[in-house]
Amino acid sequence: MYTVTVRDHFMIAHSFHGEAFGPAQRLHGATYVVDVEFRRSSLDESGMVVDIGRAGEVLRATLGELNYRNLDDEPAFAGRNTSTELLARVVADRLAERVRGGGLGESARGLTGITVTLHESHVAWASYERDL
Amino acid sequence: MYTVTVRDHFMIAHSFHGEAFGPAQRLHGATYVVDVEFRRSSLDESGMVVDIGRAGEVLRATLGELNYRNLDDEPAFAGRNTSTELLARVVADRLAERVRGGGLGESARGLTGITVTLHESHVAWASYERDL
Amino acid sequence: MYTVTVRDHFMIAHSFHGEAFGPAQRLHGATYVVDVEFRRSSLDESGMVVDIGRAGEVLRATLGELNYRNLDDEPAFAGRNTSTELLARVVADRLAERVRGGGLGESARGLTGITVTLHESHVAWASYERDL
Amino acid sequence: MYTVTVRDHFMIAHSFHGEAFGPAQRLHGATYVVDVEFRRSSLDESGMVVDIGRAGEVLRATLGELNYRNLDDEPAFAGRNTSTELLARVVADRLAERVRGGGLGESARGLTGITVTLHESHVAWASYERDL
Amino acid sequence: MYTVTVRDHFMIAHSFHGEAFGPAQRLHGATYVVDVEFRRSSLDESGMVVDIGRAGEVLRATLGELNYRNLDDEPAFAGRNTSTELLARVVADRLAERVRGGGLGESARGLTGITVTLHESHVAWASYERDL
Amino acid sequence: MYTVTVRDHFMIAHSFHGEAFGPAQRLHGATYVVDVEFRRSSLDESGMVVDIGRAGEVLRATLGELNYRNLDDEPAFAGRNTSTELLARVVADRLAERVRGGGLGESARGLTGITVTLHESHVAWASYERDL
Repeated sequence: MYTVTVRDHFMIAHSFHGEAFGPAQRLHGATYVVDVEFRRSSLDESGMVVDIGRAGEVLRATLGELNYRNLDDEPAFAGRNTSTELLARVVADRLAERVRGGGLGESARGLTGITVTLHESHVAWASYERDL
Repeated sequence: MYTVTVRDHFMIAHSFHGEAFGPAQRLHGATYVVDVEFRRSSLDESGMVVDIGRAGEVLRATLGELNYRNLDDEPAFAGRNTSTELLARVVADRLAERVRGGGLGESARGLTGITVTLHESHVAWASYERDL
Repeated sequence: MYTVTVRDHFMIAHSFHGEAFGPAQRLHGATYVVDVEFRRSSLDESGMVVDIGRAGEVLRATLGELNYRNLDDEPAFAGRNTSTELLARVVADRLAERVRGGGLGESARGLTGITVTLHESHVAWASYERDL
Repeated sequence: MYTVTVRDHFMIAHSFHGEAFGPAQRLHGATYVVDVEFRRSSLDESGMVVDIGRAGEVLRATLGELNYRNLDDEPAFAGRNTSTELLARVVADRLAERVRGGGLGESARGLTGITVTLHESHVAWASYERDL
Repeated sequence: MYTVTVRDHFMIAHSFHGEAFGPAQRLHGATYVVDVEFRRSSLDESGMVVDIGRAGEVLRATLGELNYRNLDDEPAFAGRNTSTELLARVVADRLAERVRGGGLGESARGLTGITVTLHESHVAWASYERDL
Repeated sequence: MYTVTVRDHFMIAHSFHGEAFGPAQRLHGATYVVDVEFRRSSLDESGMVVDIGRAGEVLRATLGELNYRNLDDEPAFAGRNTSTELLARVVADRLAERVRGGGLGESARGLTGITVTLHESHVAWASYERDL
């Protein structure tokens, strides 16, 4: 099995609901350093899992929908805690939609899965893994 | 599948038995930077895999049983080489016991597995993966 | 010249004023991974630059005044852009005050300077260096 | 399941064929930081997955066949794009052959698989995973 | 003293002249991960050392003159070894020229110096420091 | 000013004397990841600060005198706390002696200084800087 991973980041504000979150119930924020791993069982005819340059552009576009925003004001997240693990899923699902829509080219239809990891600090990160 | 990972470290002395270990048969030591990955298939009602703050505290308590010790003197390791891979298992098993004992709260009973990785230097690390 | 550096982090929300900031004029946030370097020309009688454990506690207390907050609401920053470089200075100045106040013990009076570095992502960081 | 990973690197020149590669069609080069993960289900009699020292030597020997070379001149790669993902497989297959040949000792016959990851920069890497 | 640092990378082929270089006399290549530190003694009126976004763009443009090239074919380096330390200076000098030319805006004229660091692997890097 | 830095590591056991050290008064150990920065004002005739390969060998030899040892048993450290900052100086002084002795070649006599940094974990490190 082959994988290719690309890295980028985004910066948001948000707050959490629930006593378990303690001071994180206050409005604060985070930088998320994002790693997206693309998987496939054999290489395409160019010898690649995915075009790394194009993957980086699609990732940047996807993160651009979240970057420099207060997630508490985003209708997509109404009534939900935008935990690192939930955001990993959101990014993965939105990337999957772009792949299906041809955003990574025809050859990318051979991809079998992706894993999105969001690093919230040097001591904590979360990921979501799904098929494509 | 979702994961959340937290990082901490501990520092120990030990020695190895067996000619294969060469100079590492002498009493020496190591800093282990520890990553614990918690896995579950769906988020809990707060939108989390596990409470990151609480996970960090439980990890610290678990590592506290090993930190600043000479493992050659610990009855738990008598007659065994405390290799990085063995210690990864020890930390994983002890964490599993704490999770089962409720140390991470009721919601943590939905966790399906953990992987513990111990980094012994910038060029070598080991891990142990198990179900919960 | 000797140095000792300790690392911690904090997470805040804020926004910037000025067209140069583009989308960063919107309310967003950041994780800052913070490195504090302490400098002195000779070691103290225990053979240290500073007590690393105590330095970590003082750093945590200092960052606790900023952590999980919306800096736009903090009187201390009224009318100022809380850029990474400005926040590096704020942390350095507050740490300097604690050192002068004895927060790191008597021996820490031999420290000659500190440098505070705030990493805002994997591709950008800022620092402020000052004497003590 | 246990793993042990060791890290090394190699530096090569190459060029890519195909319009999708844009300016990377020109002769250029890369440093690949290489992580090799060895897997096995139980530890050997010394309490190890694999002898880390010996694993490092075998990895260095394997990378030595590629290091400081122009891959465009290597018969092994004639007519193929030496993408990061392809090179990850080449390193994995060559290591597998050495393991089967006894290069890591008798005990290494208990290894069940390896994953080779090649980091081409701080924002992109690729891997190939296979059984042994 | 304040600093701001931004990171990017470029990938080149080259070879070295002189027996001291051993196998590095053959045509090979490298990925250079580049950190550029900008220094100034006080913040500009926006509260910044330099506009991080603009600094990133100028760095990318500067590295674009070297990226995906065989440095052995570049007239600028004829008869010279393109060691990591020499390339650090080349990048620093070219950036300095752009700053003087207004590429980072009027406010950037308050910058007092830059340091360029090129990482050639996880175990070796070089830098060049100069005034502006 | 130019610099070149190389990285290696060593693993030791030791204990500290003084109540301030708390549990670190017990016999424990550490992995030190070591960065050595060499400085000079102009490049040598080969276009280098120092021969990176040779620098790595000299560093390895220097660390070999400490590696896999219990520092409490080393006469060189009798009656002293082998703090990270002290060990940074020990490594720097021993390297300086080797440079003066010609261990890095004639050209290395143009070096003006070195800085040795020892990372004891992902959250703490220390350094010692000196002239050559």
